[in-house]
Amino acid sequence: MLSARWRLPLLVVGLQVGLFVLFVLFVTYDEHSDAAGQTNLTDHAHNQLYAIFPLFQDVQVMIFVGFGLLMGFLKKYGYGGIALNFLIAVFSVQWALLVQGWFYHLHRGRIRIGIRNLLGAETACATVMISFGAVLGKTSPVQVLVLALLEVPLFTATEWLVVELLGVKDVGGSVAIHLFACYFGLSVTAVLYRPGLKGGHKDEAPDYHSDKLAMLGTLLLWVFWPSFNSAAAARGDDQHRAVLHTYIGLSSCTMTTFAISSLLDKRGKISLGHLQNAALAGGVAVGSAVDLMLTPAGAFALGSLASIFCTLGFRYLSPFLAKHLKIQDVCGINNLHGIPGFIGAIGGIVTILATPDEAYGAGLYETFPHRAPPPLQATQRGELGLARLVPALQGGAGRSAADQARSQLAGIGVCLGMAVLGGMVTGLVLKLPFLAQPEDEYCFNDDPYFQLPTEGEPKDSCKIVIKNC
Amino acid sequence: MLSARWRLPLLVVGLQVGLFVLFVLFVTYDEHSDAAGQTNLTDHAHNQLYAIFPLFQDVQVMIFVGFGLLMGFLKKYGYGGIALNFLIAVFSVQWALLVQGWFYHLHRGRIRIGIRNLLGAETACATVMISFGAVLGKTSPVQVLVLALLEVPLFTATEWLVVELLGVKDVGGSVAIHLFACYFGLSVTAVLYRPGLKGGHKDEAPDYHSDKLAMLGTLLLWVFWPSFNSAAAARGDDQHRAVLHTYIGLSSCTMTTFAISSLLDKRGKISLGHLQNAALAGGVAVGSAVDLMLTPAGAFALGSLASIFCTLGFRYLSPFLAKHLKIQDVCGINNLHGIPGFIGAIGGIVTILATPDEAYGAGLYETFPHRAPPPLQATQRGELGLARLVPALQGGAGRSAADQARSQLAGIGVCLGMAVLGGMVTGLVLKLPFLAQPEDEYCFNDDPYFQLPTEGEPKDSCKIVIKNC
Amino acid sequence: MLSARWRLPLLVVGLQVGLFVLFVLFVTYDEHSDAAGQTNLTDHAHNQLYAIFPLFQDVQVMIFVGFGLLMGFLKKYGYGGIALNFLIAVFSVQWALLVQGWFYHLHRGRIRIGIRNLLGAETACATVMISFGAVLGKTSPVQVLVLALLEVPLFTATEWLVVELLGVKDVGGSVAIHLFACYFGLSVTAVLYRPGLKGGHKDEAPDYHSDKLAMLGTLLLWVFWPSFNSAAAARGDDQHRAVLHTYIGLSSCTMTTFAISSLLDKRGKISLGHLQNAALAGGVAVGSAVDLMLTPAGAFALGSLASIFCTLGFRYLSPFLAKHLKIQDVCGINNLHGIPGFIGAIGGIVTILATPDEAYGAGLYETFPHRAPPPLQATQRGELGLARLVPALQGGAGRSAADQARSQLAGIGVCLGMAVLGGMVTGLVLKLPFLAQPEDEYCFNDDPYFQLPTEGEPKDSCKIVIKNC
Repeated sequence: MLSARWRLPLLVVGLQVGLFVLFVLFVTYDEHSDAAGQTNLTDHAHNQLYAIFPLFQDVQVMIFVGFGLLMGFLKKYGYGGIALNFLIAVFSVQWALLVQGWFYHLHRGRIRIGIRNLLGAETACATVMISFGAVLGKTSPVQVLVLALLEVPLFTATEWLVVELLGVKDVGGSVAIHLFACYFGLSVTAVLYRPGLKGGHKDEAPDYHSDKLAMLGTLLLWVFWPSFNSAAAARGDDQHRAVLHTYIGLSSCTMTTFAISSLLDKRGKISLGHLQNAALAGGVAVGSAVDLMLTPAGAFALGSLASIFCTLGFRYLSPFLAKHLKIQDVCGINNLHGIPGFIGAIGGIVTILATPDEAYGAGLYETFPHRAPPPLQATQRGELGLARLVPALQGGAGRSAADQARSQLAGIGVCLGMAVLGGMVTGLVLKLPFLAQPEDEYCFNDDPYFQLPTEGEPKDSCKIVIKNC
Repeated sequence: MLSARWRLPLLVVGLQVGLFVLFVLFVTYDEHSDAAGQTNLTDHAHNQLYAIFPLFQDVQVMIFVGFGLLMGFLKKYGYGGIALNFLIAVFSVQWALLVQGWFYHLHRGRIRIGIRNLLGAETACATVMISFGAVLGKTSPVQVLVLALLEVPLFTATEWLVVELLGVKDVGGSVAIHLFACYFGLSVTAVLYRPGLKGGHKDEAPDYHSDKLAMLGTLLLWVFWPSFNSAAAARGDDQHRAVLHTYIGLSSCTMTTFAISSLLDKRGKISLGHLQNAALAGGVAVGSAVDLMLTPAGAFALGSLASIFCTLGFRYLSPFLAKHLKIQDVCGINNLHGIPGFIGAIGGIVTILATPDEAYGAGLYETFPHRAPPPLQATQRGELGLARLVPALQGGAGRSAADQARSQLAGIGVCLGMAVLGGMVTGLVLKLPFLAQPEDEYCFNDDPYFQLPTEGEPKDSCKIVIKNC
Repeated sequence: MLSARWRLPLLVVGLQVGLFVLFVLFVTYDEHSDAAGQTNLTDHAHNQLYAIFPLFQDVQVMIFVGFGLLMGFLKKYGYGGIALNFLIAVFSVQWALLVQGWFYHLHRGRIRIGIRNLLGAETACATVMISFGAVLGKTSPVQVLVLALLEVPLFTATEWLVVELLGVKDVGGSVAIHLFACYFGLSVTAVLYRPGLKGGHKDEAPDYHSDKLAMLGTLLLWVFWPSFNSAAAARGDDQHRAVLHTYIGLSSCTMTTFAISSLLDKRGKISLGHLQNAALAGGVAVGSAVDLMLTPAGAFALGSLASIFCTLGFRYLSPFLAKHLKIQDVCGINNLHGIPGFIGAIGGIVTILATPDEAYGAGLYETFPHRAPPPLQATQRGELGLARLVPALQGGAGRSAADQARSQLAGIGVCLGMAVLGGMVTGLVLKLPFLAQPEDEYCFNDDPYFQLPTEGEPKDSCKIVIKNC
């Protein structure tokens, strides 16, 4: 059997060689990055780069820095959290460029890429990061790479089903990103159940410094979440609302977390762990309705609700799931992504049903493309005037608000089905012995994978000195 | 009497319920975020979002990440500094959206909000953060929330008096933000004087790690300060100058701080504490003149001056104030915001008086709206030509440069009066016993408010181990 | 002889007074920041500020925060790394504003500055930071200031020779930034060779916390590198490609680093030090071809190559250079900037030679200004049609692709010559005794230059306690 020492490098080299060949065969520039696609009349100021780049950079900070620091919250698994987040984030983006390219951007056998593809790939990447949270510290680098390898295409297929086929409104991804990633991750961790960690693990905890760095990660995710949630919205007022709602939802959930976390402790002390997670739940919970006419107060309510359930989830549900359903969810993704994802999905449906069409004015079919009349039908109905008024209007499916709500419900179902099934299969694959799953005692520890400073973690070196005295 | 354990959660829940009701009653979308406000002719690329969002995101990083890390500089109050900064920042923005809305954005009984309101609210928020620096670690979470509750409306009123009524030029906020926040905070801390901390407190100091994180906070504030100072400037060359002046002022004050800090130590050693604060003083000191024709050399001079006085203030003035005036200023806000605020205010006046009108060319009345001729007077004087040349010209107050300078002086006076009076009243309110002010020995310590990791702060755990050996 | 205690403050004060005088004499606003440069027809939305500011802010984070944290990786030299990076970054920008102004922006005896000058100055600044990496912890603050004082004009002259005179395509700076800075820095450190550090130094290593902060620095450099590499590209598709290539190059080099680092350790353990550096090598290696039609697969290949050589360099070349060539390269800049710089330079040449002109379509002369026909020749050849098609076309040098490739080669030579000669002279100057070079035992230690917290670095205080028990 191949020694553990060779597995990670060989897998990485194999993946890179494979990806390189696929890049050679498939990847080329899109019309905004191809020099030959410009003419002497091209106004470079309108290059798509300038509309997307600021959002892209914010999302970059979230994925690589924010997530990374948050994943590094364990006292002895700081390198692991930060560096493995980096590893699978980078790989997921590379892989998603290809997979999403095959789904959406294939022209004459070539994938045409530009900045929008990078941004789209980071959405797939976020999904992998979220699922990774369920198995953080319990899986080898080889396992998490295989997880990313399987989750990226499954997410892409699910997103295609949900957003393209069913036409679900889900700009911030409550359904396609958070629900999917959460229940995929929980299924994986359920299959990888470790009876030996039933009573917890001595290293599954932060120390004072790692906790502050994880909080820094949360703060970075918090400040840039409006960019994440608005990136897929239509330009203009839709994107503007997405920023407002995300900010307001994050605000109310942060405040509420301080209250609930304090209430749940018998001495009234706040848990930084609650804050690191529940302060972000509002960003998840406004996801499906984020560009709709949710109203500021609606965003406020969704944020508060998400925080309440998220914090209660950490206190009561996670221990219950671990004990009775054998779901060991290291980062509590069910609390931050699962429950708030459901709140977001329902929030979207309620907003769709409760808002009168007039509230959207001329933008109704821009915000809800599937509610536009179908091309033929439009002509039959004599709605030619509409086409003249909005020349770029694309034919839709003529959905009513109730139709749209039904699609949203269907989307939730499809998403959960794909996530649970896909997660279970992935979990079984990850159990294959040559993927080098670490033994229980080496969980939550950098030592098996990283060279540690000789005067490593302060606590340890103190102990060593003391033994000598 | 209500146990201390319930006070924070009940206050937070009460505030959130109250704010939610007010959001329901008052808050709606502005013309850039309301779907029904767009027509088929709206060019979404001109949505206000795109002009403001990059500045807003930079200010977000400053408020939540930069300030948070800087406030976390104390070795045992890292959670407190970072998390309470987060708490009151979030609350201040929520509250300021309403208060500033009632002052400035009320249309038919509804507050119309968009991204500009979020940015405006973060200005109020910055004021609260600054004042918080004076009482950091000596106040309970309940007290700081009450502080924010009182300071936000007082700041809004002061800003309205200074900027709207008196027409003070103060784009970077030397007067309305820094002077106000500083003397408000100092008045609060003077009222909350603790004789027991006269000789200092063993925990009122950083350790090696918290000092590096605080320095990271300073660096983030430093790099994004040009966005903060330019956010309120007129678009175009005004905003361009604001960026240049802020950068140059920060540069010269940083260099100067290295020199003065080294000079003040008898071994020539630099204080990281000086650097964390005085390296930012230039951003304060260019505040009032930041969009004027200050000249690059003028910004350079203001930055250097601010650093000299700021660093000397830490060395000599802060101990003097603590000893003789009973003003215990934990973060030294008098040095970073008070003195540089005065330098900035005077710098603004000198710039206004010393720059000939010709230097502003056609932009004179854009930079100084109150210097434009009053509408009627313009017609009388036969200046119709001007109105034809600059069609959007709004009538002003026909001020001369000297008039403008007098208004600036008046603004300083109003600001100081409001700050000192408001701060004293706030201090008295904070003394109310049910606000749970911590006892002296629990100051600068996370333990009363936060769940700490069992293997908490390295130093402590070492001591514990040693006792056993 | 002047006591060491006075040298830094006096040098800083002297430099600041000198710079202030030069600012007064020379520096004024450019046409985008000067109020009098606007007319009533100026569209402020087209102010250059808005095209450059987002890139500028990203580069700011890289220089001050990213580089700072990365330089702070040593366990006892964290203040030094972060704060001295801050000191010389600020000074380099101030100084480069003047030096680059005299070279490029002098109009009637005045340097006209705007945001583009700040961005340009940060390029010079990056060069100083890179070179600083070679002597980190072995030089006094006085020495590094003198290094910056000398390197900034030398870099400016070199860049002028390479980019302006020879017309080298080098938008991401593989040649003019990375090769120059690296071999300048290596020459300096070779002259400053310390036989006493031949066997290493006990403090030349990170600890667990400093390593995580340095990794945070790397992540910030990683996410913002696309801004750095695209800042000097032509607007539109050129800038778009620069972003794509940088991102793809960074991705492949990051993945490859995980593999190679693991392969190089006999237990298969990954080195965080490798990751902190080699994960960035792809950004260097795409530098010269970053805006060309390199193809996504080309960027992928350059990134992988750079990582392989960078990681091998850390393992084999750096010890060899230290032992046999007396080049003690603290941060391994030869591995991150030297070797990948060569890969980038060659990558540029190959891309120029291998890409047919048709691939650039109408943008050929925009991407390669020196390949445009010379003004006179154009007329002679009857190419007036071209001038009509592209009215803004500036006459070039009529270069063929092979001509351009020859210029690139010449640029590499000029750059290396300037760097090695300039670095040796600078090294000799830094040896002057009054520059207060620290003794070997005080290297890599904050204590000589910074006030340390009384309960300083955790490890030390443990030892002290233990001695008592």
